[in-house]
Amino acid sequence: MFVVLLAVSSLDGRITRPGESGPGFASPEDQAWFSAALRGFDCAVMGRATFDTIREQVAAETGRRRLRVVITRAPATHAAEARPGLVEFTAEEPRAIVAGLRARGFRQCALLGGGQIYRAFLDAGLVDAMWLTVEPVVLGGGTPLADGVVTPAHGRFVLEEMRLLAPSTLLLNYRRPDRPPLRLPEP
Amino acid sequence: MFVVLLAVSSLDGRITRPGESGPGFASPEDQAWFSAALRGFDCAVMGRATFDTIREQVAAETGRRRLRVVITRAPATHAAEARPGLVEFTAEEPRAIVAGLRARGFRQCALLGGGQIYRAFLDAGLVDAMWLTVEPVVLGGGTPLADGVVTPAHGRFVLEEMRLLAPSTLLLNYRRPDRPPLRLPEP
Repeated sequence: MFVVLLAVSSLDGRITRPGESGPGFASPEDQAWFSAALRGFDCAVMGRATFDTIREQVAAETGRRRLRVVITRAPATHAAEARPGLVEFTAEEPRAIVAGLRARGFRQCALLGGGQIYRAFLDAGLVDAMWLTVEPVVLGGGTPLADGVVTPAHGRFVLEEMRLLAPSTLLLNYRRPDRPPLRLPEP
Repeated sequence: MFVVLLAVSSLDGRITRPGESGPGFASPEDQAWFSAALRGFDCAVMGRATFDTIREQVAAETGRRRLRVVITRAPATHAAEARPGLVEFTAEEPRAIVAGLRARGFRQCALLGGGQIYRAFLDAGLVDAMWLTVEPVVLGGGTPLADGVVTPAHGRFVLEEMRLLAPSTLLLNYRRPDRPPLRLPEP
């Protein structure tokens, strides 16, 4: 199973504006790219705060979509909105989550943040690729892409592809040095 | 006068490793680019901590080079190493520094950091262009590119050019939306 970190970041590595939740600075082109890119994934992992920003959208979905795994310290409090195979809540560590998804046959897992989740999976060496949108803005505050120090050996990547989503919006595809490339889906 | 912010950053917008000073993660290709690029500038502005990392190199120089303006809260304590026109120490605000350099006829000013200096000039709307090297590493700690919130209206840029310095090292040229482009020097 491939784990791909998807994020939209400012030029200075922030994934939210100061005092906000969610990437309010993301361009329409990034939002369109992100929705399209997600279709290629059969599961997605995110923190509870990130899930909060898409909860209503997920609840309104009809038909089968990808599994969403939501990391929370208190999975039991979310029992009422859990739908096994569609929305699951867990307090497991990143390594156990990835092992569990792999054992269930999932093939491509999107890691959707926030900064603490990104950091935990990066630090554990579990991120195979990063599809990073870089918007042309310097914020100087807000949630960092990696919210906490990352083990240096797990923080090194190889640039595989780059693409312009808009005249000033870059999409960068990095992979772990020891992993095969995973090409970006066609626009 | 053009003010160009030059920096090498991690993928997550850090300009130093955690607990370090100076960009220890910069590739040899970035270091070569940076030295070559500086030759096009007739002055450079930096904080005292950044000056500390090049002090011996500056002292050993023979012949006329660019003016270095070093920002410090206590310029008087550096009187012994000041050399008017070559190394000057100041406690002035960014706007006064830029106005003073412009009045003296300087044409191209390199802004060399660190994160608080970058932030102060960005926040004041004084950065005309950014030549940003992005190394393929996630750090999760260390000094941020902009060490403090930047006024949103002054944080927006336009991507003008991109270049690969090495297979995984990007060089990005951004400009302020209301400023003409300043092309990167030829490799």
